[in-house]
Amino acid sequence: MQHKSFADMQCPIARSLERVGEWWSMLILRDALRGARRFDEFQKSLAIAPNMLTRRLNSLVESGLLERRRYSARPPRYEYLPTESARDFRPVLWMLISWGNKHFAPEGPSLLIVDAKTGARADPIVVDRATGRPLMSPDFALAAGPAANGRLRRVDRAADERTAVASEGAPAKSPKAKSRSS
Amino acid sequence: MQHKSFADMQCPIARSLERVGEWWSMLILRDALRGARRFDEFQKSLAIAPNMLTRRLNSLVESGLLERRRYSARPPRYEYLPTESARDFRPVLWMLISWGNKHFAPEGPSLLIVDAKTGARADPIVVDRATGRPLMSPDFALAAGPAANGRLRRVDRAADERTAVASEGAPAKSPKAKSRSS
Repeated sequence: MQHKSFADMQCPIARSLERVGEWWSMLILRDALRGARRFDEFQKSLAIAPNMLTRRLNSLVESGLLERRRYSARPPRYEYLPTESARDFRPVLWMLISWGNKHFAPEGPSLLIVDAKTGARADPIVVDRATGRPLMSPDFALAAGPAANGRLRRVDRAADERTAVASEGAPAKSPKAKSRSS
Repeated sequence: MQHKSFADMQCPIARSLERVGEWWSMLILRDALRGARRFDEFQKSLAIAPNMLTRRLNSLVESGLLERRRYSARPPRYEYLPTESARDFRPVLWMLISWGNKHFAPEGPSLLIVDAKTGARADPIVVDRATGRPLMSPDFALAAGPAANGRLRRVDRAADERTAVASEGAPAKSPKAKSRSS
């Protein structure tokens, strides 16, 4: 690829995008998680150039998101099955669907999450597993974790410094600043 | 850009990626949602080439995810503020963080979601807003919505046909197939 790799970044978003951030990859995962298995199924759904589809399928196999399995010996034919890691990716797609339906679907939703038994439409929100509290800002914030290096902490420092300058040298005491240092 | 646009696709994932799917865009949003505002703050955090950062910031402004605001008249200087649409994107980033921390952080997490008051770590899961049920497969599935065109329905048909062939012509009666036709 021509762009810089995110592989040397520590951030879990960057590391995730290193696996699924290439153009087309998430749409291939979408189809795999909906039941697409074979090359021509992906190809027809996506209208993607065959050489590009081959590259992306191989890349997803290398990243451990698809498993390649031969389903015909003569001629040799392969299908692509989502791995556990790919199934774990489903919530990311669900939140992307929810965001896209809310902001970019003026004609109404064209893809929904539904109860598999009743067909009732589900409305996905993110909550904390232990407490069930919705993970809304400003109640929740991002914080550098124990393994974070200096670069990941830099944004926090820059924001804190800007806040300190804006309040003419008064110490920053916002809940956000507090959470980041805890 | 050299790749095909997703703008003519109906799928809410494709439409979302059309806005945030370019390499770097989600990392810029991550920093904006953590409090980065100014060009050099993004630049230092990401170690991104300045011309690339300019392109990405402009693209996010065009897509309505960042708002450009002048904070200095002489010399003219601008900062970039996340819009409501960008704040709505936070749950997508949270699920990416969760996925990345689970699968690609052998040394431990370097970015966490925490309670802004207590600093307690949160563990994000996606549930249905009305019922609180976790949106797990196979209880929940994707289904074409009322506005879906033929291409979005194609994967379902292909999977159904493959199932029908595999069971030697018996009608497909899996819960998944049922949900798609309901």
